[in-house]
Amino acid sequence: MTTTVNRKANFSDKLINIIQKKNSCVVVGLDPYFDLIPDTIKQNFLKLHDNVFKYAANVILEFNKEIIDSLEHLIGIVKLQIAFYELYGWQGIWAYTETIHYAKQKGLIVIGDVKRGDVPSTATAYANAHIGKVLINNYSATAFQSDAITVNPLLGTDSMLPFIKNAETYDKGIFILTKTSNPSSVEFQDILCGSKKLHRIIAEKIHEWGSQLIGTHGYSSIGAVVGATYPEDISALRKIMPNAYLLIPGYGTQGATAEDLKNCFNPDGYGAIINASRSVLYAYTNQSWKDKYGTHTWKEAAQNAVIKMNEDLNKFMSAGNL
Amino acid sequence: MTTTVNRKANFSDKLINIIQKKNSCVVVGLDPYFDLIPDTIKQNFLKLHDNVFKYAANVILEFNKEIIDSLEHLIGIVKLQIAFYELYGWQGIWAYTETIHYAKQKGLIVIGDVKRGDVPSTATAYANAHIGKVLINNYSATAFQSDAITVNPLLGTDSMLPFIKNAETYDKGIFILTKTSNPSSVEFQDILCGSKKLHRIIAEKIHEWGSQLIGTHGYSSIGAVVGATYPEDISALRKIMPNAYLLIPGYGTQGATAEDLKNCFNPDGYGAIINASRSVLYAYTNQSWKDKYGTHTWKEAAQNAVIKMNEDLNKFMSAGNL
Repeated sequence: MTTTVNRKANFSDKLINIIQKKNSCVVVGLDPYFDLIPDTIKQNFLKLHDNVFKYAANVILEFNKEIIDSLEHLIGIVKLQIAFYELYGWQGIWAYTETIHYAKQKGLIVIGDVKRGDVPSTATAYANAHIGKVLINNYSATAFQSDAITVNPLLGTDSMLPFIKNAETYDKGIFILTKTSNPSSVEFQDILCGSKKLHRIIAEKIHEWGSQLIGTHGYSSIGAVVGATYPEDISALRKIMPNAYLLIPGYGTQGATAEDLKNCFNPDGYGAIINASRSVLYAYTNQSWKDKYGTHTWKEAAQNAVIKMNEDLNKFMSAGNL
Repeated sequence: MTTTVNRKANFSDKLINIIQKKNSCVVVGLDPYFDLIPDTIKQNFLKLHDNVFKYAANVILEFNKEIIDSLEHLIGIVKLQIAFYELYGWQGIWAYTETIHYAKQKGLIVIGDVKRGDVPSTATAYANAHIGKVLINNYSATAFQSDAITVNPLLGTDSMLPFIKNAETYDKGIFILTKTSNPSSVEFQDILCGSKKLHRIIAEKIHEWGSQLIGTHGYSSIGAVVGATYPEDISALRKIMPNAYLLIPGYGTQGATAEDLKNCFNPDGYGAIINASRSVLYAYTNQSWKDKYGTHTWKEAAQNAVIKMNEDLNKFMSAGNL
């Protein structure tokens, strides 16, 4: 693709570099479902009945560290769904913070799946919290070290500008909700506005917002979230936003297959990262796996799920030659 | 208004009870802008250069407590914009948690302005975090004690149901973004879908979602966020959602006046709560106030701002007789 904008290395270049290095476009979603975390992890911690959140946060952090250690040679990107940390109060957010720190130390790219969006003054606070800095008595500090976050565009351009500005200033990325993977996404996102579905109009805006932030590989730091569960929309959205990196949830537990994903990718073999969470983290809870290998092989089960996913997806990537 | 639903006391009844008790429909937004917090508060805490977030969180919590102590006789409702706490990391979320706890101890109703919204499994985690409970090894715990939260409806009905369910189960409330106060809200929220603006269609859904959750005063526990800055939309939305309590931001710093707000209220004098944040908390930084009274009178400045606001708004409330 051609553009007249001066290109400089940005978040999408970091993404492509790690995809090439790891030969994987998989994003592992670190979404702690406490009940599904292996007992062998939980046994390491005292059940603090006077502080259950501290106990839960310690268990979650340890699980995340062991998952990261098990998968870091197979993947380059992790995504943390912050809802599953907020569930454990400020102690959960401590585990969120420490998990990001650990993943960054391992050289992974970290996406905070926070879906924030608010009026400009508030959006600025969110942007500075998640992909920026805050000044306290002239001392600059970072709340969360995430490389990118997901955001919700319902409030329009002025609500997105603080995130776009921080993406530019700090070499960070954002992924803007465009067409989500849930069944009810048809309700408002597919509503016809004149001759176009709302999510197509949002996609046109994302293309516009990103057009000034194109990196050396031709991709913008302003990406989009597009659910794998609507393959027919993916093709249209790919064309509307050729420079946008697509973050695709819905593979695995939500039912989409690799075949549904072929249209996420550009002819260069890039342009999409594919998320799986529960189907990787808790692969060991599948009856067939448990029967064959037992529950103590939870790391191997997760590795096995990622290896299969990489194989599934690499055929699309290797078709291109960026 | 008439309805065939069996009415039982719900969140909107709690809201009306406290509005009657305090004779105020004002919501004070506890949005910490660190630079605007009086020096007299900051001087009480050691500047921890190795832990600036702990320092900031302590300052913010102390400021919030003193503001709550100063205003609790004048108002019944506070709203915490969580972005301004996330900005200070998990320590900021600690201050958020403790502020909610303090406000609840004082008998205030607390709204968490979190604007969450996600696919059903994630929305369930958010709902349980903010207006519900979580089970950890069969031990039930509460992350945040807020009475109500704001939510973003872009993902549709299935993404709202976990919040609606928790509102019913735990006597909590939600306020769904309908028409926000920022200039760019026209972009997607006012887009024409057939003959209707999108926000009118969202409002029809809110009316539908709330119709089974009507309290003893005729109001639903499913409310709506409608910006004070669009008075012509307020009138239409009031009629589409007669049972919804409206949370109205935009008064004060964002420019709306009491006159803009008269159509928020139903003929019974209820149905709307009006938020002001910076114009109350930092009223002492106005040049005219500083010149006349100095900066040490920051509590009196905040009280004065709320007293004026109550006077402004009570003429609409007293017109009704629920």
